Formats: sequence, structure tokens, C-alpha cells
Amino acid sequence: MLNYKIILRTIGFLLIGESLFMLFPLIISIIYKGTDTSSFIYSSLITLVAGATFLSFTYKAKKQVGKREGYIIVSIVWIFFSFFGSLPFVISQAIPSYHDAFFETMSGFTTTGASILNNIEELPHGILFWRSLTQWLGGMGIVVLSLAILPAFGIGGMTLFSAEAPGVTTEKINPKIKDTARILWNVYLVFTLIEMFLLMFGGMNFFDAINHSLTTMATGGYSTKQTSIAYWDSPYIHYIITFFMILAGTNFSLSYFAIAGKPGKMFRNEEFKFYILIILTATALLTTGLMLTSDLGLEKSFRNAIFQVVSIVTTTGFATDDYLLWAPVLTAIIFLLFFIGGSTGSTGGGIKVMRIVLLLKNSYYELRRLIHPNAVIPVRYNKKSVNQQIITNVLAFFFLYVAVFVFSCLVIMLFVDDFDTAMGAVASSLGNIGPGLGAVGPVENYAFLHPAAKWFLSFLMLLGRLELFTIIVILSPAFWKR
Amino acid sequence: MLNYKIILRTIGFLLIGESLFMLFPLIISIIYKGTDTSSFIYSSLITLVAGATFLSFTYKAKKQVGKREGYIIVSIVWIFFSFFGSLPFVISQAIPSYHDAFFETMSGFTTTGASILNNIEELPHGILFWRSLTQWLGGMGIVVLSLAILPAFGIGGMTLFSAEAPGVTTEKINPKIKDTARILWNVYLVFTLIEMFLLMFGGMNFFDAINHSLTTMATGGYSTKQTSIAYWDSPYIHYIITFFMILAGTNFSLSYFAIAGKPGKMFRNEEFKFYILIILTATALLTTGLMLTSDLGLEKSFRNAIFQVVSIVTTTGFATDDYLLWAPVLTAIIFLLFFIGGSTGSTGGGIKVMRIVLLLKNSYYELRRLIHPNAVIPVRYNKKSVNQQIITNVLAFFFLYVAVFVFSCLVIMLFVDDFDTAMGAVASSLGNIGPGLGAVGPVENYAFLHPAAKWFLSFLMLLGRLELFTIIVILSPAFWKR
Repeated sequence: MLNYKIILRTIGFLLIGESLFMLFPLIISIIYKGTDTSSFIYSSLITLVAGATFLSFTYKAKKQVGKREGYIIVSIVWIFFSFFGSLPFVISQAIPSYHDAFFETMSGFTTTGASILNNIEELPHGILFWRSLTQWLGGMGIVVLSLAILPAFGIGGMTLFSAEAPGVTTEKINPKIKDTARILWNVYLVFTLIEMFLLMFGGMNFFDAINHSLTTMATGGYSTKQTSIAYWDSPYIHYIITFFMILAGTNFSLSYFAIAGKPGKMFRNEEFKFYILIILTATALLTTGLMLTSDLGLEKSFRNAIFQVVSIVTTTGFATDDYLLWAPVLTAIIFLLFFIGGSTGSTGGGIKVMRIVLLLKNSYYELRRLIHPNAVIPVRYNKKSVNQQIITNVLAFFFLYVAVFVFSCLVIMLFVDDFDTAMGAVASSLGNIGPGLGAVGPVENYAFLHPAAKWFLSFLMLLGRLELFTIIVILSPAFWKR
Repeated sequence: MLNYKIILRTIGFLLIGESLFMLFPLIISIIYKGTDTSSFIYSSLITLVAGATFLSFTYKAKKQVGKREGYIIVSIVWIFFSFFGSLPFVISQAIPSYHDAFFETMSGFTTTGASILNNIEELPHGILFWRSLTQWLGGMGIVVLSLAILPAFGIGGMTLFSAEAPGVTTEKINPKIKDTARILWNVYLVFTLIEMFLLMFGGMNFFDAINHSLTTMATGGYSTKQTSIAYWDSPYIHYIITFFMILAGTNFSLSYFAIAGKPGKMFRNEEFKFYILIILTATALLTTGLMLTSDLGLEKSFRNAIFQVVSIVTTTGFATDDYLLWAPVLTAIIFLLFFIGGSTGSTGGGIKVMRIVLLLKNSYYELRRLIHPNAVIPVRYNKKSVNQQIITNVLAFFFLYVAVFVFSCLVIMLFVDDFDTAMGAVASSLGNIGPGLGAVGPVENYAFLHPAAKWFLSFLMLLGRLELFTIIVILSPAFWKR
């Protein structure tokens, strides 16, 4: 029997938290004397009342939270957050359509960054700030979930990774979840503030700097400008954001150890090494390609290449150039990067570098197994043998990811005419990236899509953010059988 | 130390076999008084001399054929066959470019059916017959390899399947490889002859009937008409070919048992049931789709749907309609079928239905494992537990297939401008299908491609035909280390 009360009670607590976070855009709105002030007052109150109602009906709930309750809480909290989080957009009429407002909010919390807005610069400051803040909350939310909270619940899927996450291991965290969560939040906050100051140092105003540092560290990609980072024709700003995107796509516990005086842990980590290798290889290929097919010169070619590569690999989604205008094979390289994603324990989405490493290694080991069929050859990762169960899980994840991708493309093809747009929209939503291909490229937006397609893509964002298994487990009949 | 002599000796024997098979198109050429008669005499002689030379230099070879020798023979025999098999095309000047002739021959032997010809009806009868015969030889070649010869060599990759292939199991075959091979050849020959008579009964002339029955049973797809089966506006011919394509995509040992009075084995087989389910589901969806978006009427919609579905699923590649002109979502359904393939132990290529079944089952079991992490839950197939090694192999195969697909698309994007053409050409070559998307759709051909792209696609055909592992094992350094 599921403990429904504790589920509602947890959601209630979290909603009260959300209502408090709405006070930040309220303050911004008051400072900038925006037209959106009242929308935050109403939204915050509605969310607070909803949260309090949940609490009052469940004050007798038993404290026990089992694994199944954990799965449900982790899944539906994003839906509740997006529902209440979209209120400011609707009430302020910044986004009049509820379909669009929900899409924009889910895209925010899941740090996707796909937007239906085509008038970003006309929106009031409070609304823009709330948009960025949803990403920042969602970004750290997922890191804390995957590194601190889920392992304690014993929840599968992402747990397999957090259990394997180097540095901070499950055993070390369990007795002190709160400490781990606090450390991670602090690292995140400090990185965000440093980036903000560095961007202001490069000439960005305070408002743009805080917004972009929030959405960089979240690998979210929402911008205060319709043209994204291309708005600033400044190498300094491009390189600073590139650097912080790389940082945001790195396992936060590795960054913490690096700061704490153990950088060796980072540079010995196989996932980190492969992550950097992917970025450097793709950048080298694209720089060469851009040099050969344009007259941009070395620095600009390199900068456009590395910015776009890092933006896609880390699943941020900022743009300084439209990769759809590049030579087709260069666009294809970018699209390949849609299927990699950030590191485990980072704010990045997608398949994740660690899984790619394990998939490649297992293929190599499979060949050795075919040559020496009687030898038992376990895959080694970070100098340890990897349990075969984890390999099977990663392989099953990959198959599910491809299967979900393919079937989702079929669904989106009901609403669009070309494969590029469908594949781009689906890969981008599922990988929590933002821009896609075709009609949803980096200088376009998702406004034109049918509402049903928007709801479906919102679902894919959540599915991808929780790394498939969490949602699919809940949707499976076996979960509900006893 | 590799026994190179026995490798060359085996190839020598097989080339003499190929030179003898060239006498069939020679006879056809003489009967139809074609301009290509001398080209077959020369080609057959050159091939015979080459084969005899190999034999004379290796008459002292030790008879021992190890596993590694087996891998090499199985791989390079296709290259030798395609090299010598392309001679009639070049010598007769039917295909003046050697790039094109090799592509056409490799496409034949691998039963792909991708063609560079845009003047099929102008070619002499002998040449057309040789083209069809390459497919027929390649088609049965792969069945005999996978069900009779490879298990005896103990070769991995496909063996895992043949070992699991229901009905004929390894233990039963080992002592009597020749018997099994003979039975399979007989079934193949009889089916081909029956189809030929049924096509002639429907009004097709002898030459067209023999060619199409050869390429149907091989799931090859070469036609004697530029417009493929659409040339015949006959429901009877369309349905007959549909039926025999389904048969060709079915495990030949199951068909043998059905003929031998044990049809139950076929209908209890999970792969066969899923194969039929896929065909029926896709046909139902596409029939509905075509009814809604055209004024073809029920029978024509159904016929166009089932013919195209079966042609792609079985990896034959015949066409009675251009699926690129259908509503985009219907084309997308067809493209999804590019990634299924025929049954194991059939002449069909692709991922194969059995792997799809195991991938889907394993995903479901993985969810159950997440819910009950301490339970050991093996995947069951045809009422038996499947060894975890086989599951890992299938999962690794799927990852490799996707990885090869993606990287090959990147390579082809160097030569074409749009993703559709690249994805279509690669999926079609790797799956041994024939037609693709975009500029290589069912009413187009591969002539316009850069020679480098043609050589690369030829390599993919071989890679796909031998189910990846065989070729990749040989290309891996571990294979050559001792």
C-alpha cells in the first residue's frame, strides 16, 4: 500500500519552497518597476496556499518513505513545480497561452531551454528573471537528487550511477545527506556568483550577467536576448561562458575535490578525461571545417566551434552562431553531439558521458569475448571492475533512449513535415538541450508547434531529465502490482 | 600463427564455384543472342584461372581450419566474389565504371539491391540474369553460413544466434553440416521455382519471372525493370511477391519444419510471431494513413501498404509505390522499419527480429529488476531462460549498429547535402535493403554519388551482411595479437 499522504506532504513542503523562491523575481520586478509585480504576488500566494493545504490534510502522515514513494515524489514534483511555476507567465500575460506557459516552465525546470518566446526583449525583468531562476533551481535540483537524495532512497536508474560516481560514494553520503547537499549547493552558488562578476567585468550589465550565470551553471540556456549570446560580439564574454558551461557539465563532486585541493581526482577520472576529449576533438574538426568553408579566420572559427560544441555537449543550448548555416557535414557533427550529454553528477542532461564510455568499453570487451569465448573479461572503469548488472543497465538505457527517440519522432511527424525538425525537436527535448534542427534551429523557437506537440515535448523533457527509468518504472504495470 | 594457405585454398575452391555459376548467364546470353556472350566467357575463364592458381600454390596446405581462419575466410570471400563477379559488367561495358560495377556486385552478393543503374531495360539479358543470380547466391550463402557452417567453426557473432536458432540446433547440425546445408538449399530452390511458376501464371514472361523469383527469395530486390514491381499493374503479382518476401524473411529451418509436417514449431516461435505482428501493425497503420490522405480506396491502399512494409522489413527493397510521396509521418513509419530486418536464419538482413524481441524483453525485465533489485530475473525466450551473455551480446550489437549508423552518416554527409539522403543511404546499405530516403528513394538510384561514397557504402553492405561483429573482430588489434 502506497503512503499517499507522505507523497502529498513532501510535495506540499516543496511547493512552499517554490512560493518563497517566487519572492526573488518579485524583488527584481519591484526594483525595475515592472508591470509584472502583482503577478508574482498572486502566484506566490496561490502556490503557498496550495502547499499549506497539502500539509494541513496530511499532518498525520507516517514518516516512512519507501522506494516506490520516492519514485513518485521525484517524478511528480516536476509537474507540480511547472504547473505553479507557470502562473507568473499566465497572470502577467507575458505568455497568454497556457500550453506555451507550461512548456516554457517545464523547459526551464528541466534545464532544457527550448522556448516558445519570440519577443524576449519586450518582457518585464521579473518574468525574465523567474525564467532563469527556474533553470537554476532545476539544475541544482537534479544534482542534489542524483548525488545525495536518490541513493538514500535506494532508487534505481540514476542511483546506479550515483553509486558509481567517483569521489562521493553512496556509503559516504548516506549518513550525511544534508551535508553533501549543502556542499553541492555552495559550490553551485559560488560558481554562479564568480561567473556573474566575470561577465560584468566584461561589460555585461548586472541583470544580464545574473541571468546568464544562473542559466549557464544550470546548463539551461535561457537568455535575456532573442539572439542569445550572439548579442554580445565579445570574445571575452564568449570564452567566459564557454569555460563555465564546461564547468557546469562536469561532475560537481569532482569540482568540489579540485577546489578542496585534490585536483588529481578530476584528472584521473575517466569520465572527465573523455568529456574533455570529446570537446577537443569536435572543436578541432569544426574549427578546421569552418576555416575551409568560410573566411572567418582562425580565432573566430575556433571560438564559434568551441562555443557551439560545448553548448550542445553540456546540453546548455546557448548560441553565438547558427550551426544550421554551416556546411552540412559540420551540422551533422553538431547533431551527433546531441546524443552525448554532460557528466554524471553535473547539471547537464542527455545520455551522459559516463554511459558513452561504458558503452564503448563494453563493445571493445565484447569483441575480446568473441575471440576468447571462455575467458571472463569484466569491463574496467576508473581502474575497477564494473558489475555486469551496471553494464546491462547502461545498455538497456541506451536501447530505451533510442527507442523513445524513434517513437517520439514518429509522434512529432504527425505535426511537422520534415525529419530534421522532428529529430531536432525530439533529440533536443529528450537531451534537455534547447535548440534543434530544421524549423527549431538555434535562431528559431518552438512557438509554431501544435499545442499537442508542445505537451508531448514537455513530457520528453521530464523523461530525459529523470533519465528515462524513473518515469518508465512508474508507468509500468509491475510498479503498481503487489 | 594463421594458416594463410588454407584461407587461400578455400577461396580458390569457392572462386572455381563462382566461375561455374557464370555459365548460367552465359547460357541465357546465348539463348537471347545478347552482345554480352563473350564477357561471360572471359569472366568465367579469368575467375577459373584465379581460383586454380590459388589452389596450385596451396596444395600442401594443412587441413586445419581454426576459428580465426574461419573469420577471415567468411569476410574476404565476399570481397573476392565481388571483385570477380563485377568482371562481366565491366567487360561487357554494361557498367563502364569500375567503382559502379563493384558497388553493383557487392550490392548483389550482400542482397542489398541498391543499384547505380538508370538504364536497366537497355541491358542484355545475360547481364540482368547475372545481377539476379549474385543475389540468389548471396542470399542462400548467408543462410548456410549462419545455420550450418559458422556454428561448426565456433565463430561468434552470428553463431550466438544460430546456436539459439530454434528447430535446428548446433548440436544436431555439427555432425552433418552437409546434410543441413543440402536441406536448406533444397528448400530455397523449391521456393524459388514455385514462385517462378506462380509469377508466370500471373502473366509474367519466363525471363522476368526467373529473375524476380531469384531476387525475392534472396530478399535482394534487383528487378529487370527500372520501375521495379510497379511495372506490373497486377494485384495478383503484387500479392504473390508479398507472400514470397514474407517467406524469404522467415527462418528457413522453421519453413522446413512446416513443410515436413510440423507447422506448430513455426507458430509457437516468438520471433516468427513478432515478425508477423510487426508486418500486420505497420500495414494497418499505413493502410489507414493512405486511406485518409489519398483516394486510392481500401484494396489499393492495403496492397501498397503491405507490399512496401514487407519489402522493407524483409530488406528486399522492391517497390510498387514511392513511399517518399506519402504523408511525412507515413514515410517515417517506413523508415522505422529500416531498423528491424528479417528473421534469423532467413535471407533478410538488418538488426533482425529476434534481436528486437530480446531488446524489448530485456528492457521490460530491467524495469522489473529496478523495482525488485534483489531478485534474479533472467529473460525468457521461447519458454527458455536466455543466457545473460547472449543478452549482453545483443545489447552490444545494438549499440554498435547505432554507432556505425551515426558515424557512417557523418561520412556520407561529406558527399551529400541533406540528412535524409545520408540516413537513407546508410540505413539501407547497412540493413541490406536497397532504396533509401531523399535522393536515394525507391524511384531513384545511387549513380550520382561520389565514387568514395560508393566504396564506403559497399563496405557497409558487407559489414551489415556479416552482422558487424565478424568484420569488426578482424579489424580489431586483439584479433592479430597472440
